[in-house]
Amino acid sequence: MSPVRNAKVIYTGIPEGFPVPGKTTVYDESGTVDIDSIHLPPKSALVKVLVLSIDPYMRGRMRDPSIASYSAAYIPDEPINSDGIGKVIRSTHPGLKPGDLVRSKLNHEEYTIKTVEELGEAFFGVEILKKHPNVPLSVYVGSGGMPGQTAHSAWRTYAKAKKGEIAFVSAGAGPVGSMVIQLAKQDGLKVIASAGSDEKVAFMKEIGADVAFNYKTMSTVDVLNKEGPINIYWDNVGGETLDAAFGNAATYARFIECGMISGYNDKDGALFKNIGNIVSQRFTVNGFIVWEIDGPWKDDFEKTVVAGLADGTFKYKEHLVRGLEQSGDAILAVQRGTNKGKMVVVVADE
Amino acid sequence: MSPVRNAKVIYTGIPEGFPVPGKTTVYDESGTVDIDSIHLPPKSALVKVLVLSIDPYMRGRMRDPSIASYSAAYIPDEPINSDGIGKVIRSTHPGLKPGDLVRSKLNHEEYTIKTVEELGEAFFGVEILKKHPNVPLSVYVGSGGMPGQTAHSAWRTYAKAKKGEIAFVSAGAGPVGSMVIQLAKQDGLKVIASAGSDEKVAFMKEIGADVAFNYKTMSTVDVLNKEGPINIYWDNVGGETLDAAFGNAATYARFIECGMISGYNDKDGALFKNIGNIVSQRFTVNGFIVWEIDGPWKDDFEKTVVAGLADGTFKYKEHLVRGLEQSGDAILAVQRGTNKGKMVVVVADE
Repeated sequence: MSPVRNAKVIYTGIPEGFPVPGKTTVYDESGTVDIDSIHLPPKSALVKVLVLSIDPYMRGRMRDPSIASYSAAYIPDEPINSDGIGKVIRSTHPGLKPGDLVRSKLNHEEYTIKTVEELGEAFFGVEILKKHPNVPLSVYVGSGGMPGQTAHSAWRTYAKAKKGEIAFVSAGAGPVGSMVIQLAKQDGLKVIASAGSDEKVAFMKEIGADVAFNYKTMSTVDVLNKEGPINIYWDNVGGETLDAAFGNAATYARFIECGMISGYNDKDGALFKNIGNIVSQRFTVNGFIVWEIDGPWKDDFEKTVVAGLADGTFKYKEHLVRGLEQSGDAILAVQRGTNKGKMVVVVADE
Repeated sequence: MSPVRNAKVIYTGIPEGFPVPGKTTVYDESGTVDIDSIHLPPKSALVKVLVLSIDPYMRGRMRDPSIASYSAAYIPDEPINSDGIGKVIRSTHPGLKPGDLVRSKLNHEEYTIKTVEELGEAFFGVEILKKHPNVPLSVYVGSGGMPGQTAHSAWRTYAKAKKGEIAFVSAGAGPVGSMVIQLAKQDGLKVIASAGSDEKVAFMKEIGADVAFNYKTMSTVDVLNKEGPINIYWDNVGGETLDAAFGNAATYARFIECGMISGYNDKDGALFKNIGNIVSQRFTVNGFIVWEIDGPWKDDFEKTVVAGLADGTFKYKEHLVRGLEQSGDAILAVQRGTNKGKMVVVVADE
């Protein structure tokens, strides 16, 4: 077979503030690949990329590589990568057969060659996905994948939820926040949830939030004052929302620090007036990263969450865009919060 | 016997910023008491106040009583109170005999009448102090009392110290900080400590701090950059020091949130630029209050710390002032950090 196009998305360097599609990431469709004859190193696979997850943490990878963090810095002039699912086309490892669906960190390329070791570095190890017929592939990088596991494993680990308590979830319409809302409701909590559009507010109500509000049109402080004090704050955003939570949390509140997207594109910092309540109200604040805590919860995740997504117990909302050329805009949309649900780039159909 | 003077220190109302001796607390020596004939209610004692501890948290009690916190708000037009030691003069309870030394929350009065229940509300319950001959009475409200227990019980609970790790202690010359430095050195850690005068720096070096600096003349960020990254931060001050610690802490660092004095007299808040590291470096941040965590450590405290104070293993530094009329200035000095050691008002000799 003759070569086919192999478009990719190249990282060019650290953004000043928000990433700039076409500048800090560049879509390049000049490459080609001959999928029948391209040489594969031992123990590797040629993978056709099907879906790629776009997540908030990706901004953190656009940094000076000398700054340590939980995920590697992107390398200038190389394709970016993120969680994805691809189909094995050819393989030089007996564990990977043509047609297998692999869930792994994948390059933002239409076709990518990865060794088994590289595929194993992702959140789930080298994983041949057993797709449930009722669960779309894209959901396996969303509520049924890393973001869902993030919500599930940290909720189980840190929430110490008691029936009747009050939880506040920021960015409650995303794949993490929406799963947290549903887990908190299963545990019998009152749930307050915030997001940045009325459409997202409607979705949060649909999945069970008792109080859902648009933080752009309502004051978070006022809402928490009226509906709190909160016992658990699930933080996806940091900044003034976190300060509002510090100011309206009950004694012994648990702060689950999943992300602080408000600070990812901003070096000026944020003013905290209520952080002293950590002491006076004896809060516990835990940062975490999913792959360090998910071990004990993997079975429960499959049985509770993935099964619940298949039978409709758990709900999700996606924002699918088609074509790798959408990657840069999708990354920016997630940073700005203009996405409508879990952002996934559908690169190709099976 | 005829009545004797019973001076007291009255709380008049919430300070705007720092407390104002003579205004927000007023020394009043107009009162008298007849110690032989004054009526005692059942199950109570007339106590001659000997020493009174002056601690940072007292500023927090000068607040709107509708704001819940770990210690009760002071009541306007009533005497303030704090941890102290007094001698029982007369008693209507068989458990309290004349001459007994009681350690309890005591009014800032020369003589005070307390029920057994009131005496039992203090950190240690109704406690008849067994004074060691080598340990001055004042030390029993400092390194051998609540501040020492604060350091000891929270270090044992939250530090998860491993030999060779690096701890940073702010306000390291105070009764809490100096005990933390010594406990950290016993555990084999490298200790960085900050305080606000060269005299305090000298004391911190004397008790074993590997790196001690005056934060007013050296940049905390620069010191931590050079000497860190830190694995444990013992926070007594909050504000920009806490932000510097967030910015220079190692992955999985533990933040022990004992106090944030920088915010006690200031409603403007502080700018945090590095708080996002709670997530990216997976910190654990714990606020606490001593009497909720000291239970399991009381025996160890007596055997390790109090015994060590008696035999010289543990060192302390005091700032004693004589006479109840010093109370207001002493409170202000602790808030401003101009005290030279653990601040104690010596009200009377035994």
